[in-house]
Amino acid sequence: MTIRLPFRRFLFGTIYTSILVLFFSVTVFSQTTDPLPSWNTGPEKQAIVDFVHATTDSASPQFVPIAERIATFDQDGTLWVEQPLATQGFYCLSRVPALVAAKPELKDVEPFKTVLSGDRAAIAKLPMQDLEKLLMATLSGMTTDQFRSDVKTWLASARDPRWKRPYTELTYQPMQEVIRYLRDNGFKTYIVTGGGQDFVRVFSEQTYGIPPEQVVGSMGGVTYSHDANGKPVLIKEPKLVLNDNLAGKVEGIHMVIGRRPVAAFGNTPGDQQMLEYTKGGDGARLAMLVLHDDAEREYAYGPALGLPDVKMGTFPQAYYEMAIKNGWTVISMKKDWNRVFAFEK
Amino acid sequence: MTIRLPFRRFLFGTIYTSILVLFFSVTVFSQTTDPLPSWNTGPEKQAIVDFVHATTDSASPQFVPIAERIATFDQDGTLWVEQPLATQGFYCLSRVPALVAAKPELKDVEPFKTVLSGDRAAIAKLPMQDLEKLLMATLSGMTTDQFRSDVKTWLASARDPRWKRPYTELTYQPMQEVIRYLRDNGFKTYIVTGGGQDFVRVFSEQTYGIPPEQVVGSMGGVTYSHDANGKPVLIKEPKLVLNDNLAGKVEGIHMVIGRRPVAAFGNTPGDQQMLEYTKGGDGARLAMLVLHDDAEREYAYGPALGLPDVKMGTFPQAYYEMAIKNGWTVISMKKDWNRVFAFEK
Repeated sequence: MTIRLPFRRFLFGTIYTSILVLFFSVTVFSQTTDPLPSWNTGPEKQAIVDFVHATTDSASPQFVPIAERIATFDQDGTLWVEQPLATQGFYCLSRVPALVAAKPELKDVEPFKTVLSGDRAAIAKLPMQDLEKLLMATLSGMTTDQFRSDVKTWLASARDPRWKRPYTELTYQPMQEVIRYLRDNGFKTYIVTGGGQDFVRVFSEQTYGIPPEQVVGSMGGVTYSHDANGKPVLIKEPKLVLNDNLAGKVEGIHMVIGRRPVAAFGNTPGDQQMLEYTKGGDGARLAMLVLHDDAEREYAYGPALGLPDVKMGTFPQAYYEMAIKNGWTVISMKKDWNRVFAFEK
Repeated sequence: MTIRLPFRRFLFGTIYTSILVLFFSVTVFSQTTDPLPSWNTGPEKQAIVDFVHATTDSASPQFVPIAERIATFDQDGTLWVEQPLATQGFYCLSRVPALVAAKPELKDVEPFKTVLSGDRAAIAKLPMQDLEKLLMATLSGMTTDQFRSDVKTWLASARDPRWKRPYTELTYQPMQEVIRYLRDNGFKTYIVTGGGQDFVRVFSEQTYGIPPEQVVGSMGGVTYSHDANGKPVLIKEPKLVLNDNLAGKVEGIHMVIGRRPVAAFGNTPGDQQMLEYTKGGDGARLAMLVLHDDAEREYAYGPALGLPDVKMGTFPQAYYEMAIKNGWTVISMKKDWNRVFAFEK
């Protein structure tokens, strides 16, 4: 086909001009926008920016093709507040009255008896096996659809004890910026949580822009069945299929993702293997650990790490020393974040 | 900012013209391109096209938001040839000599002894528990990285017994077109296979454009460990974590995807629950079953279903009758596909 010359010139001129306009818009935009405004300038912020440049610039020797750009984030204590109890713990406690109403024989059985008493000090002292019993009892027996609906209803009205806000507002703004920055640079962002996979999937899309299929977590068993109307459903069973903590995080990553992450973010020793596994791959790798050292704006339960005003918390000093030795970047909430929550000014 | 008039006119005129050019290109393109050229005209092809229109047209009462557009495909017999043996079976048989070289004590133990004899009739008669032993022995003991590399090497040189071509060329062209058509319309396409998840992940991206994280399959256990150089690795264990067949397919979908699919494709009774579960959701749903009734171009091992020239195969007639009763669309290879493989003219 021959295109008449004036039209051809017009057409190609048009496309050329559009490309020019687009090019200048992009350039101007990228020069004026800081993708991490809640981060203070320093080596920690720089480590994130350098990693993104090294892995996404096609001229870089450490370039990573888009398909392999996988980033994994622990949730409790890494993306949102986990004190005084991980949010799912509050959810499970809230389910006990309804559970006992349905099964009155549990009224005088531990740990349900203590939970019903409302005695916070006693609840905080429940032994691990009682807590497991509580998790199993409150997270099973319903269909996956019913569970999703229960969690959604609870999240809409529950408020955290300190800020009196919905739990989903207690995400760390600087980490939200990292998630978005990585995603804007072609990374597929995953949550890899010790919490329940089904629990986190209910709100991950709305809260982090991370869809349910990109949430790896502790998995309970499910059984395929049919409801009273003959509709196929899945029933949640009191059985643990995957404990997504420690080495279980790497197993979960293999089950659901099937690739070694290029970047990983955690905060507790439960994230050690995920960070090791990530850092153990070839090329540029980013492994980061959120250190809780800000009692004023959030909580301080990490080790002091030479900061004189931080009291030793629940995590061992040795863990953070190992992190630094392994080339992981330790993020100080106090020093590196100029804002913790989006609701702050 | 005030833009000088001539430049402003030029700029807006340019954008307007670009939009017009783009609009006409898209219109012309969509009018002239059939997304399913290997499908014969008929109710089966129409069912696919109607489903896509109903779920992607924002004015349709059955519109499905992009995030929820999940389509799942069984692999063996649905996306590629599964006769005379599923490809992974050939792989496992090929590994026996190396396995026995490493563990000579297996030489006189069944099923390894029979496999080493090369007696095809005897191999075909091995009981199920011997086959399981064979799968466990050849699919475990190595790191996940080593396994990936072994499978890749094997696929590069292995040829199927009938067409003498790489197995990855034996995918059904009409199904490749469905995968692409759905993907072009915002669907996330998943493989949900009874075969090994790790096995299929090796070639899914190159063969179907489906990345490893969108492959659900039978899962073996893995153990987190370190190799001789201290590099963190995963070791494949002789332990089945998920048998991704029958109700296991729905469990696997829940573990990895966490959403009910909107479209599902299968061929054997092993796909029944996945198709039921898919069809059991609200709104427009597509459930399709590939019927193998074409001995000339592929194989005939489905039931006759009233086609006088097809011999009853290995799948029960009652299964296909149930499929039709449930509103699943049965695809006849012989009648509905004008081309089976891409390598045919």
